[in-house]
Amino acid sequence: MAIAQVTIVPIGTDSTSLSGYVAEMYRVLEHAEPSIRFELTAMSTIIEGELEHIFRVVRLLHETPFEQGALRVSTTLTIDDRRDKQGSIKQKLESVAKRLQKEMES
Amino acid sequence: MAIAQVTIVPIGTDSTSLSGYVAEMYRVLEHAEPSIRFELTAMSTIIEGELEHIFRVVRLLHETPFEQGALRVSTTLTIDDRRDKQGSIKQKLESVAKRLQKEMES
Amino acid sequence: MAIAQVTIVPIGTDSTSLSGYVAEMYRVLEHAEPSIRFELTAMSTIIEGELEHIFRVVRLLHETPFEQGALRVSTTLTIDDRRDKQGSIKQKLESVAKRLQKEMES
Amino acid sequence: MAIAQVTIVPIGTDSTSLSGYVAEMYRVLEHAEPSIRFELTAMSTIIEGELEHIFRVVRLLHETPFEQGALRVSTTLTIDDRRDKQGSIKQKLESVAKRLQKEMES
Repeated sequence: MAIAQVTIVPIGTDSTSLSGYVAEMYRVLEHAEPSIRFELTAMSTIIEGELEHIFRVVRLLHETPFEQGALRVSTTLTIDDRRDKQGSIKQKLESVAKRLQKEMES
Repeated sequence: MAIAQVTIVPIGTDSTSLSGYVAEMYRVLEHAEPSIRFELTAMSTIIEGELEHIFRVVRLLHETPFEQGALRVSTTLTIDDRRDKQGSIKQKLESVAKRLQKEMES
Repeated sequence: MAIAQVTIVPIGTDSTSLSGYVAEMYRVLEHAEPSIRFELTAMSTIIEGELEHIFRVVRLLHETPFEQGALRVSTTLTIDDRRDKQGSIKQKLESVAKRLQKEMES
Repeated sequence: MAIAQVTIVPIGTDSTSLSGYVAEMYRVLEHAEPSIRFELTAMSTIIEGELEHIFRVVRLLHETPFEQGALRVSTTLTIDDRRDKQGSIKQKLESVAKRLQKEMES
């Protein structure tokens, strides 16, 4: 399992608002791959799942602004893939929290 | 005000775990600029604040892995800066939520 | 056709040098997809080709550091996909050069 | 010295062409910091220089689309900072070339 972060931006649309595009991606994410988990942040969408599923979903997400009329799309994907340990959104945040707590106690 | 997303990765450290580095960045963020707001996600740190403060904080964060012994650091920063409207982490997420709700109702 | 930029970084390897990993990716790129064009820069690899081919190649490239012993890999991909016009590495650089020349003449 | 890669994209402009914005950034780069070196690629601008100079230049570049009328700008910066060795654009590309040659000969 890997964790990814994806940001998809349409270029040359006449509005500075992107929320309509992000909402559409959210709907695609809800129906695309039951096996992935995802969460929206203010800057990107975080996806947890098998590498193949992440790539498939990103491929779909990249297409959504075009379906809404955009003619140019910039997609940025970062994948964090760790194979010595089962990585997950939850585990990564807990690791940092544990570190912080340990140091506060010492 | 702008919103940014930053990921800082030490290269050539012998452990695959990065939580010690992320915890240290968290402590720097807590003390660096009272005027910024920040939140940790599983893939990056999101920072909200004045552009100058964001740059200053990222400059500090970039230094922390070196202070912990790293000899090479890769820092990725994305800034979303909107000047026709007061943008914030909260506002961006609410815009998407409103869109989703409106479409569910219609 | 789209243009992409990809950077692949192994995490937790004991050396700060990444040139061995980049050289291996170069060899994979040479044999992976005859239909893509690519070039190495100091910060990333730029790939030009059909979207499906780009995704397939990035999937392969992401695997190479693992095959060389890495246990954690961070891959960052940016895709610039323009559908109102045939985009290419050459065309993008020429557009900027033309602009600069026009302004110098005026 | 560090090496950086920066991509600056205006959002909500009515044209899909970005070459006018890139040309303007090029002019800013030519006059901003005599101490930095830079080169344009099809996907980003690569900058080599002292960390402080890189941050200063990126700060300036981020402003240029606003000066040309954009109301929202997305800036992505990646810094590769290596302190065990003098890194440069030239040195990084030569390291990879040497590796490839060595393996071809063996």
